[in-house]
Amino acid sequence: MSVRVGVIGVGMIGQDHIRRITQVLTGGSVTAVNDVDAARAGQVAAGLPGAVTHPTAQELIADGNVDAVLVASWGPAHEEQVVAAIAAGKPVFCEKPLAPSRDACQRIMDAEMAAGRRLVQVGFMRRYDAGYRAMKAALDDAGLGAPLLMHCAHRNPSVPDYFTTDMIISDSSVHEIDIVRWLFGEEIVAASVLTPRRTGRAPDGLQDPLILLLETAGGVLVDDELFLNAHYGYDVRGEVVGETGTVALADVSEVTVRSEHLHGGRVPVDWRDRFIRAYDAELQDWLNAVAAGTSTGPSAWDGYAAAAVTDAALEALRTGQRTAVSMPERPEFYAK
Amino acid sequence: MSVRVGVIGVGMIGQDHIRRITQVLTGGSVTAVNDVDAARAGQVAAGLPGAVTHPTAQELIADGNVDAVLVASWGPAHEEQVVAAIAAGKPVFCEKPLAPSRDACQRIMDAEMAAGRRLVQVGFMRRYDAGYRAMKAALDDAGLGAPLLMHCAHRNPSVPDYFTTDMIISDSSVHEIDIVRWLFGEEIVAASVLTPRRTGRAPDGLQDPLILLLETAGGVLVDDELFLNAHYGYDVRGEVVGETGTVALADVSEVTVRSEHLHGGRVPVDWRDRFIRAYDAELQDWLNAVAAGTSTGPSAWDGYAAAAVTDAALEALRTGQRTAVSMPERPEFYAK
Amino acid sequence: MSVRVGVIGVGMIGQDHIRRITQVLTGGSVTAVNDVDAARAGQVAAGLPGAVTHPTAQELIADGNVDAVLVASWGPAHEEQVVAAIAAGKPVFCEKPLAPSRDACQRIMDAEMAAGRRLVQVGFMRRYDAGYRAMKAALDDAGLGAPLLMHCAHRNPSVPDYFTTDMIISDSSVHEIDIVRWLFGEEIVAASVLTPRRTGRAPDGLQDPLILLLETAGGVLVDDELFLNAHYGYDVRGEVVGETGTVALADVSEVTVRSEHLHGGRVPVDWRDRFIRAYDAELQDWLNAVAAGTSTGPSAWDGYAAAAVTDAALEALRTGQRTAVSMPERPEFYAK
Amino acid sequence: MSVRVGVIGVGMIGQDHIRRITQVLTGGSVTAVNDVDAARAGQVAAGLPGAVTHPTAQELIADGNVDAVLVASWGPAHEEQVVAAIAAGKPVFCEKPLAPSRDACQRIMDAEMAAGRRLVQVGFMRRYDAGYRAMKAALDDAGLGAPLLMHCAHRNPSVPDYFTTDMIISDSSVHEIDIVRWLFGEEIVAASVLTPRRTGRAPDGLQDPLILLLETAGGVLVDDELFLNAHYGYDVRGEVVGETGTVALADVSEVTVRSEHLHGGRVPVDWRDRFIRAYDAELQDWLNAVAAGTSTGPSAWDGYAAAAVTDAALEALRTGQRTAVSMPERPEFYAK
Repeated sequence: MSVRVGVIGVGMIGQDHIRRITQVLTGGSVTAVNDVDAARAGQVAAGLPGAVTHPTAQELIADGNVDAVLVASWGPAHEEQVVAAIAAGKPVFCEKPLAPSRDACQRIMDAEMAAGRRLVQVGFMRRYDAGYRAMKAALDDAGLGAPLLMHCAHRNPSVPDYFTTDMIISDSSVHEIDIVRWLFGEEIVAASVLTPRRTGRAPDGLQDPLILLLETAGGVLVDDELFLNAHYGYDVRGEVVGETGTVALADVSEVTVRSEHLHGGRVPVDWRDRFIRAYDAELQDWLNAVAAGTSTGPSAWDGYAAAAVTDAALEALRTGQRTAVSMPERPEFYAK
Repeated sequence: MSVRVGVIGVGMIGQDHIRRITQVLTGGSVTAVNDVDAARAGQVAAGLPGAVTHPTAQELIADGNVDAVLVASWGPAHEEQVVAAIAAGKPVFCEKPLAPSRDACQRIMDAEMAAGRRLVQVGFMRRYDAGYRAMKAALDDAGLGAPLLMHCAHRNPSVPDYFTTDMIISDSSVHEIDIVRWLFGEEIVAASVLTPRRTGRAPDGLQDPLILLLETAGGVLVDDELFLNAHYGYDVRGEVVGETGTVALADVSEVTVRSEHLHGGRVPVDWRDRFIRAYDAELQDWLNAVAAGTSTGPSAWDGYAAAAVTDAALEALRTGQRTAVSMPERPEFYAK
Repeated sequence: MSVRVGVIGVGMIGQDHIRRITQVLTGGSVTAVNDVDAARAGQVAAGLPGAVTHPTAQELIADGNVDAVLVASWGPAHEEQVVAAIAAGKPVFCEKPLAPSRDACQRIMDAEMAAGRRLVQVGFMRRYDAGYRAMKAALDDAGLGAPLLMHCAHRNPSVPDYFTTDMIISDSSVHEIDIVRWLFGEEIVAASVLTPRRTGRAPDGLQDPLILLLETAGGVLVDDELFLNAHYGYDVRGEVVGETGTVALADVSEVTVRSEHLHGGRVPVDWRDRFIRAYDAELQDWLNAVAAGTSTGPSAWDGYAAAAVTDAALEALRTGQRTAVSMPERPEFYAK
Repeated sequence: MSVRVGVIGVGMIGQDHIRRITQVLTGGSVTAVNDVDAARAGQVAAGLPGAVTHPTAQELIADGNVDAVLVASWGPAHEEQVVAAIAAGKPVFCEKPLAPSRDACQRIMDAEMAAGRRLVQVGFMRRYDAGYRAMKAALDDAGLGAPLLMHCAHRNPSVPDYFTTDMIISDSSVHEIDIVRWLFGEEIVAASVLTPRRTGRAPDGLQDPLILLLETAGGVLVDDELFLNAHYGYDVRGEVVGETGTVALADVSEVTVRSEHLHGGRVPVDWRDRFIRAYDAELQDWLNAVAAGTSTGPSAWDGYAAAAVTDAALEALRTGQRTAVSMPERPEFYAK
């Protein structure tokens, strides 16, 4: 049985998910679309046999031909749409961030808990990357001892002019924030931000690069280099240091070329190049879970926790101080 | 519109393709199965909602609910089944080898040419491997000059006791034979076989490892190490040497571990581990082509040419001599 | 003409330098030795044809058959011995640290400036490592843009029980402190220390690992992981991040082994294994400079600056605060 | 005590050895030089304090201030000079090839055996390369099983116009011929030559690249790619395949650079860049052996055996046939 998906927000990421569901993955079809830009919604629907457009997200959610909802609208709209999907009893995949504030995330959790079952998956797709999966497997199985440190780098070739220093935290580092929680199975309790020399390639006013320091409840210290105008390519790196060994993401080039006195491989050009398979795996996992009536991916709690850490990191950026993360106990509802 | 596939032969590889179509890929479903072992066919069908079993391959091919046929039976049965599918006007994916003799391959080509359109795709899945694809792209685009040499290694951890020296040529080296033709876009004109010291881990009577030498029409010389009891893992390697540079398959480990005075990555455990994504991409490409009414993958001519080179290599193995490949002109029908 | 060297302190490192001068390098010989343990001095001299022992460092320095002095005694003795060599007008190579306090380093500089010419080389041997040299060359020539960040790791398999947390700063991190100054050609202006989860393999009371953060005058931020009980091997790593690219120390294994489902290389067992060639190059450079009447290696100013940064880092360790390095202007005498 | 060396032949390689003895190594000095070009000899001697020139090689060998002789003249002169040194009872280091014919090598062996002690070391410097040494150690210790195959590549960026196809065998492949004998401790019994497509960058008449196949007495099969106009750099590679694993030379770049969508390291520019440390170690070993009155390096027998294999390979090149190496038993005199 195929899952009939309604997609809210058909910008770049929404269209990419539609392509994924219709041309790559199994077990799903797109039956309805909605966008604040009705013309764009119409154009996208025109390319999807059997799909309809709805003037509002609410109507899409209510559509009897929609089994599950994919939210790829802009962040401020997430809360209302996700809560509406929960109210309709429909599983909902929501792109990160789950909502722009931790309070909004809390209201989503409250709604889900009131509904009595897990309906929300948040789009933290790195958990589905083969590299991070192998890293987690090595931590579990390779006899490296307890984790002590993690070194991360998150490098983009460039960002648009409207990109702000706050967005380095909220849009970029949120990926490492989630991965750290997932890899080590514990919460982040404090954040600090260091500001090295700015690259001359950053737009005025952008503090690029940054170092974000995270501390987990168990004492693992994470340094995360965020470098948004790294120019040479899109490069995501990570190494976990355990008591008796380390595990690091390997380079991802398929071939090695020897030419002009050099040997080496290529660096991905952008995040799609690097993580396309992770996006595929993420959404396939969601479709499978929806079909099975279960929920296995990153939860609303994961979205909430990421927001709480992001808040602390933004405060640390503003104040220059180490900032404790204020986080309640995880509700029993969200225990694994 | 979903392609309804009938699967002939539901042993290990057939079942794996069924899993792929039903759980991984998009645009296909399995509606019928057949196997010489009727009980096995029944068991497999029982796990496929809506699928039926047919007592004979012919009946499966004739089934109105079968749009396209996947042949995963044993080699000697391929010819009859593929020809029958062609006769029925149905696209057919046939696992390699297309047929055990070049004459049988010729009859398949004759049938297909008589039918007037391309219906056959042969299961040379390495063409869909990301590594070989990047290698071909580098040869086309990276300014490495004309190809002169290729070094290959094809290592299995071990093979079953019934594996024969002839099978090293016909079952293992056939992958490099096809890849060489595809990478360089020219035919192989001669083959030689060298017999180094045997490993003590080979069963009695098995000459393992072997070196197969291939020469293309353009003079590219290929040495292919075939080592079926290499013990340490499943390792497929290749490097093309051009006039001004080289390109080689990179190691495929997702992570690098540092432990016990070593740093390094893992070697795949078997061919599924190494090539699972290539199999996925291959069959998705076939489903897409069937749905579009086109044919883009390895053709019956590719199956025929591989058989012709295999024949020469087997002769070279028997005689110890360099053996020319006897090959007719490629029919215009099979021009790209 | 061969440089006749007198060696003060013939413990492990002193004996290693003697072996180097007599069996590996050119242009030097050992003509005199001294040690607080007279018996040890005698044993060492017995193996050196033509070498004498002196009961005191002063007498060794005064020996007319000693052209230059190598100080490998313990740290608290350095100042007196180095100043005496300067007073005698003899070039002196002093193992790091130049002296245990910055005041002592200052007095050495004062003596050298009073003498009117450069006579002191400090044993910062990493500057002679092929890896760091290639890194510096890449920063100068490879078009990587201005340096912004550096990530370092300094991992020992284990340390003796008497090793203290202060020694992690003063004995281990001093190598990165010097390399950072040398690579970027600017002074370090602040230090901070972070304390992650302790490894269970550290002796009681040892905070291992540590992260030392250094900031240069130009704003380069350096994070240095110091992990003294890393168990898996001796591993020194570094990556400089520039505006348009990065350069990192490569792995140093001479061969790659494929075995038991792994491929990879070895990690050095200890600092001698890793840096033996750097020690050779360092001392050869010193002998050459002495013979030429010049001074090209790390200077007393470099020793002083390292002591000043070490002081700040120790203060940062004690207080948990970012600590500015108090450093005077570099005397013109020490300009390149 | 320093070994006083007389150098015959002060072209590029001779001058490089002089530099090595006087500026890099310990325990040697150059006291006399000779060259067919007397003016060149005079110029070189002028830069060496205390060195004299001799009008003939014979007079140099007879010089009482010459303890040992280094022969770096052209190949046809080697026999007479080496035999004269033996007659004078002086140790002699002879650049490869020992002599241009196996008969000449035989006469050198006869002279040495008549003299009753080992006096000759041949300049097969690869045995002193850290990579090959680690490879040999891995074969001895790493549990890789018996060796079955070896894959080699020997790539030069370019060669001068006078370079001939015969020289690819006699000057280039002789390095692999010696290394194979040394690694496996057994003789080569047959050679074949394969001729792939020529690079457009080879001068007219040069068959470049070549594949040389070697078979050892124990059945190890070696394929050696010789590519003299490989353009991209100087690249020497090797992988030995054992019954349970493999060992390969690692890349030798000191750093990894990430820039312009690539990550990787450098390839050496020429043989000096790649093997400078091997030359240093080779000649230091010789000086040490001379001083100790022993002989530990490649012997006249090694020079003879290389000539015998070279003869067979040249015959194979001419005839296109596999050619057995005609080789007598190794004289007991040359047993390890």
